[in-house]
Amino acid sequence: MKFNDTIAAISTALAEAGISMLRISGDEAFEISEKIFFKDKSGLKKINLKDTPSHTIHFGYLFSGSELLDEVLLSVFKSPDSYTGENVIELTTHGGVMLTQKALKAILDAGARHAEPGEFTKRAFLNGRIDLSQAEAVADLIHSKTDSAHKSSIEQLEGSLSGFVSNVRADLLNVISLVELELDFAEEDVTFVNQDELLEKINNIILQIKKILSTYIAGRVIRDGIKLVIAGKPNSGKSSLFNKLLNSERAIVSVTPGTTRDYLEENIIINGILFNLIDTAGIRLSEDEIESEGIRRSYEKIKSSDLALFLIDSSIGDEQQKESLKYYEKYFAKDKTILCLTKSDLGDSSSLINKIHDAVKISIYDDSSIEVLKNQMTGRFLKSKNEISPGRIILTNMRHKLCLEKVISSLEASRYSIESNMSGEFISLDLRAAIISLGEITGEFTNEEVLNHIFSSFCIGK
Amino acid sequence: MKFNDTIAAISTALAEAGISMLRISGDEAFEISEKIFFKDKSGLKKINLKDTPSHTIHFGYLFSGSELLDEVLLSVFKSPDSYTGENVIELTTHGGVMLTQKALKAILDAGARHAEPGEFTKRAFLNGRIDLSQAEAVADLIHSKTDSAHKSSIEQLEGSLSGFVSNVRADLLNVISLVELELDFAEEDVTFVNQDELLEKINNIILQIKKILSTYIAGRVIRDGIKLVIAGKPNSGKSSLFNKLLNSERAIVSVTPGTTRDYLEENIIINGILFNLIDTAGIRLSEDEIESEGIRRSYEKIKSSDLALFLIDSSIGDEQQKESLKYYEKYFAKDKTILCLTKSDLGDSSSLINKIHDAVKISIYDDSSIEVLKNQMTGRFLKSKNEISPGRIILTNMRHKLCLEKVISSLEASRYSIESNMSGEFISLDLRAAIISLGEITGEFTNEEVLNHIFSSFCIGK
Repeated sequence: MKFNDTIAAISTALAEAGISMLRISGDEAFEISEKIFFKDKSGLKKINLKDTPSHTIHFGYLFSGSELLDEVLLSVFKSPDSYTGENVIELTTHGGVMLTQKALKAILDAGARHAEPGEFTKRAFLNGRIDLSQAEAVADLIHSKTDSAHKSSIEQLEGSLSGFVSNVRADLLNVISLVELELDFAEEDVTFVNQDELLEKINNIILQIKKILSTYIAGRVIRDGIKLVIAGKPNSGKSSLFNKLLNSERAIVSVTPGTTRDYLEENIIINGILFNLIDTAGIRLSEDEIESEGIRRSYEKIKSSDLALFLIDSSIGDEQQKESLKYYEKYFAKDKTILCLTKSDLGDSSSLINKIHDAVKISIYDDSSIEVLKNQMTGRFLKSKNEISPGRIILTNMRHKLCLEKVISSLEASRYSIESNMSGEFISLDLRAAIISLGEITGEFTNEEVLNHIFSSFCIGK
Repeated sequence: MKFNDTIAAISTALAEAGISMLRISGDEAFEISEKIFFKDKSGLKKINLKDTPSHTIHFGYLFSGSELLDEVLLSVFKSPDSYTGENVIELTTHGGVMLTQKALKAILDAGARHAEPGEFTKRAFLNGRIDLSQAEAVADLIHSKTDSAHKSSIEQLEGSLSGFVSNVRADLLNVISLVELELDFAEEDVTFVNQDELLEKINNIILQIKKILSTYIAGRVIRDGIKLVIAGKPNSGKSSLFNKLLNSERAIVSVTPGTTRDYLEENIIINGILFNLIDTAGIRLSEDEIESEGIRRSYEKIKSSDLALFLIDSSIGDEQQKESLKYYEKYFAKDKTILCLTKSDLGDSSSLINKIHDAVKISIYDDSSIEVLKNQMTGRFLKSKNEISPGRIILTNMRHKLCLEKVISSLEASRYSIESNMSGEFISLDLRAAIISLGEITGEFTNEEVLNHIFSSFCIGK
């Protein structure tokens, strides 16, 4: 695979910081860099990158035409020993926003094209540096907001899924070769493998894949978090509970001083799992609003959530509790809602709701009650924290899940063909379809549209 | 200067991005890195950094204990050829927030101390890699939000101010040597230099410094921008004008696609100068509010601004215009306010305000009227864009200004001593005081408190 243009982008986050890094990749990365990088501040002493060893760093001056932009470090990576597999130059500048933008403009003016999101990683994939599941892991790694998300994405980057795919593929090719060998000798009526043996092999592969597929719910939760709705009437304790959950866990993600916490807004990490709080400000559960547009939209959000906490103030009277329960029953799916009796410290033990068995009694002044709630919240999705452990494959990606499901249905079709004593051609056809679906995971068989979709979710500069 | 600990920090902005960079500097930078960086993903193959050449890059795996964190690049810089002058390791990781924080934690756990803001640059200064004015230029470079701010800070980083200081210092030492030589031979009543010659030399130095001092107003505006208040009664066109100014100039700072524009909020760049809009929401100029706390606070803000635009709707009646004028005269200093007659397209040409000669008539539908206003806004501070040109020194820093003013008053004292035929000891004392004040600019003479103040305004990681 050969690209005929050279791409460039700012690869670090664009905000005031000590350092910014810009990356240039492609055939002309060296020529472009030689136009704007000089060893002296008069802009006279050129660098000869062709004769410069790979993986070396050079101090110099970055220019935009005759304007000195910054003192920079230039790192050289020679094809194929670079992230993309192409010639790559990385420029490290002082980390100002204005300065970094001017540096990028200088690179683009010198002949590079601004890279699209994920384009460096796309080239790494297309140049065979990494497979597609590893490329996807790069994006997951960057976006991971929890320890468990980080762990599962680094596993995938290191090839845990690729390794699984490669093993299954080898098993499948073995089965195919048996089937097709028999086909070659079909006229001679030789049997190389008995049906039972073949079925056992196929069943075994199906079983392996199903085991991996079973990790998907946990995997999705690890990667994307849980969409959480906290609902209830005004004064039922929604904000207090939110803050309580937030405060008790916030420390986990801010291990270092001086780091921004903004990205945490409306995200809570509980037992290592990310909960994205969905705003349902519209839901006030008051009579006059019940038919309004706001309620309708909130209802949509509740439906699309993974989990809802429905709060009822245990200190209010039976009539009001009944009213709340009415909405709970009308709008909330029981299998994904936890009914919470709040303010249990003030609660009337003889109240109506106390007779409901599946409600969790909580008080923000009783830490153990909050612990019980937290365990209920995460226990629905993840059996134990140990589900993520080194070497274990967790399926986090919907695309991979769909590919594996296609593999299984092809294998089931081949099994049916064998059991129905159909011709070897049919069996082989299904087995080959399974191989192709499997290859879609690692990108061995993938069309341009799928690739574009995958890489468009990347940051620019990666 | 020798530091007995090793510091580390995240040097890039902490947000989801392609790349993050962490920096480690100090005696133990290599030992700490060898504890967490391995050449293989099993964490067995160590790197021997002592025997690794400086300015080389190495691919490997970053660990936190036994947990694999990421695939990283490690760059080696050996003392004294590094930013700080010490042994420095830079680690480039995938740019996730969680991941970068875990990487920092691994480095700190391995024995580094979290760096304070500007501590790398402080070490660079204390190790003699750069002087103090250059260190300050690094911070200015990072914070520069306009092209002119960028240009003046890179000039300073490249030593334009240091060069000036060094020249003035040489001239001063020359004068001192003449004075002190005469002192040595005082008893013999020899005269090495005549008074007029001495005075001419000193006057010449004063002139040079005053020329630089005269650039300070432009310099401050270039570096810090202009605090701007847009005031006027409700419906006088404040928001429309703000948006008009913003939209017509916004393109300048967003030269590249995909970059965040958030930092622009309430900042406008006009003719290359940054205007920071000060919120004076409190000032509604209505009778019932006139004595309120809100008005008093807005009034404080108006006083602390560099420039105010006072808007009067030219389409309203004389009585209402008179009322507005009353507030204008009461609260606004004429020398730093531009009176604007808005909605000139609707305006009554015979209205009261039209008789005021210094008002600018503007309409957001008339681009040329906006251009006139913009030129008035910047013309008050900067004579021309060419004030910033390569090699020209622009004084942007209050500290430098104060130092130079101290130099001048010492020189003036010495001049007085000469004119009063005072003893050479007095002349020499004042001249030596001038040298010390001069040396404070480059940090030759600076106390710890000043240093701490300077570096505390830096980002962490620089």
